[in-house]
Amino acid sequence: MTSGKGGRGRSGRPTVHTVAKAAGVGVGTVSRVLNNHPSVRGETRERVLAIIEDLNYRPTPQARRPLPSEHPLIGVMVADLYSVWQSRIIRGVETALAGQDYGLMAFALGSPQRAAQVAQPGHPSALAQGLLLCDDAAYRSWTGQERSQPTVRLGAVTEDLDYVAIDNRYGGLIAGEYAATLPGEIVGVWLRGQLKERQATRKGFVEGVESAGRQVIQHIEVEPQDHLHRVAAELLDRLPDRATVMTHGDDLALALITEAQLRGLPVGDDLKVIGYGDHSQAALVGLTTVHQPLEEMATRSTELLLDRIQERHEGAPPREQQFQLLTPRLALRGTA
Amino acid sequence: MTSGKGGRGRSGRPTVHTVAKAAGVGVGTVSRVLNNHPSVRGETRERVLAIIEDLNYRPTPQARRPLPSEHPLIGVMVADLYSVWQSRIIRGVETALAGQDYGLMAFALGSPQRAAQVAQPGHPSALAQGLLLCDDAAYRSWTGQERSQPTVRLGAVTEDLDYVAIDNRYGGLIAGEYAATLPGEIVGVWLRGQLKERQATRKGFVEGVESAGRQVIQHIEVEPQDHLHRVAAELLDRLPDRATVMTHGDDLALALITEAQLRGLPVGDDLKVIGYGDHSQAALVGLTTVHQPLEEMATRSTELLLDRIQERHEGAPPREQQFQLLTPRLALRGTA
Repeated sequence: MTSGKGGRGRSGRPTVHTVAKAAGVGVGTVSRVLNNHPSVRGETRERVLAIIEDLNYRPTPQARRPLPSEHPLIGVMVADLYSVWQSRIIRGVETALAGQDYGLMAFALGSPQRAAQVAQPGHPSALAQGLLLCDDAAYRSWTGQERSQPTVRLGAVTEDLDYVAIDNRYGGLIAGEYAATLPGEIVGVWLRGQLKERQATRKGFVEGVESAGRQVIQHIEVEPQDHLHRVAAELLDRLPDRATVMTHGDDLALALITEAQLRGLPVGDDLKVIGYGDHSQAALVGLTTVHQPLEEMATRSTELLLDRIQERHEGAPPREQQFQLLTPRLALRGTA
Repeated sequence: MTSGKGGRGRSGRPTVHTVAKAAGVGVGTVSRVLNNHPSVRGETRERVLAIIEDLNYRPTPQARRPLPSEHPLIGVMVADLYSVWQSRIIRGVETALAGQDYGLMAFALGSPQRAAQVAQPGHPSALAQGLLLCDDAAYRSWTGQERSQPTVRLGAVTEDLDYVAIDNRYGGLIAGEYAATLPGEIVGVWLRGQLKERQATRKGFVEGVESAGRQVIQHIEVEPQDHLHRVAAELLDRLPDRATVMTHGDDLALALITEAQLRGLPVGDDLKVIGYGDHSQAALVGLTTVHQPLEEMATRSTELLLDRIQERHEGAPPREQQFQLLTPRLALRGTA
């Protein structure tokens, strides 16, 4: 994991930032210790208290105010509220909110009309203490606004916001390095589109394959709206006899497996399939895939957001951008 | 399906209700035709227009106002935002909202603290044009309030609200009738608790078994928070050699299947398992289960809610309670 943290103490007198840095925790954690919040217990709490005493740190009076609203809510903006991706994200958010007093409010912004709604004044999302932007449309809508809420971008690198993302280039790389060790031709199937996140996986995969002195013999591009089983059937028609197929996502990989089984082709033998994502059905079916730590990404984004809310609440000076880039890993199962 | 509809025209002059009844559609549909809304097209639109002409119906001027807010939003209150149940509900809601201008805002109310938040004045849910209550805690919180929004209860029978629910007694009944046709002893595993919805399935199951002159030899009650695989292992230890196990839900059924496979027991042979729900993994694994039409329930609830919003908007007089009770069906696959 790569991470960047700003916020060193800027004067001789110890600040909450000096304490946080010395204790190796976030400012929000220090504040929760000061407020005797039940979510910080045990060793962390002891360490923070010891450092507060060592440094003779005295919090300013407003650091002990209660939460800023009678409706402490975190707002989450997602493309939809039913996909597997989204449900893993929300699980991760809830892990960070467990034991906190925050409620959870989510907005499904899958259409341009809905994303545009968010930018209008008086939208209910303005009532949230902090926002998690999990979707590109939500992010674009947000950038046009005069919002003052703490906001964290989840799942993509940005220049103007704190963010937590997954290093998909690395995810592609490890899949490519592994594919290069397998017999047969290597084929990549990618989602058409300019999204940087999508390009990163493909780029990493090619790097991984070529670093082993091999080549991806064919790249096939599919449209996001294509019917998965039709794509799978067409792929099987044109694949070499022995091939490892790297797919852009678990959904297509699972469709390929189903389609191959219908044709009596065993997967994992001459035909090998690698997924991307590691959603719940992947383990059930024995799919070899790249595990994306989505829950962890969401938990860390939320923790970062809670820290930012707490800092704002304490009147702390604005800090540098913070970011974390999480590392995927290869989940080796039966299909490749 | 059972359904109750009030709102017959009460004077000689034709009203929007007279038109809706004659056309066999909801009041909202008539209104959308009058407003030339793109979501009503083809045969329905033609029929409504023909009836409007036949009856010489003239809408009152306010029936053509635009939507009541610059932020037309439907609010959905659910226990969580990550379970399979919830994702199927949201899919159904989105089906009803497709082509409409409404946004979707959801609140996760799994804890008593969160449910209590909803009852406080100024909660963001008050900004929604209409509410779908999908959760008991949300419903209890709602009943204490002076809310004026159109509100529909989803998934449970209520006396004070419009509702759309699933007839789980019938779901239990068809499972019981089927179990009675199978060899071996019949065992039921149920979730402990007083919820009427939970009791209904069990009651129906016993009825179904007994109507065929057979008996459920054992009812086992488990706690909602019990670990599924531990429950499954304990069940397998105490089951008769030949048994059909009716479970309260697909999750436990799938855990039983996994646990049985670990012990080398084939499921569908001496040991038969029936699920309840028919969530996505059920078909994948070949689980015989009771299909709950959750998506349909959510779509119909949302359509009912949209009709109520439109009626309110037109200043229509309050109508009688409306309800629909949907019928589950048995999905026969390999495990029983």
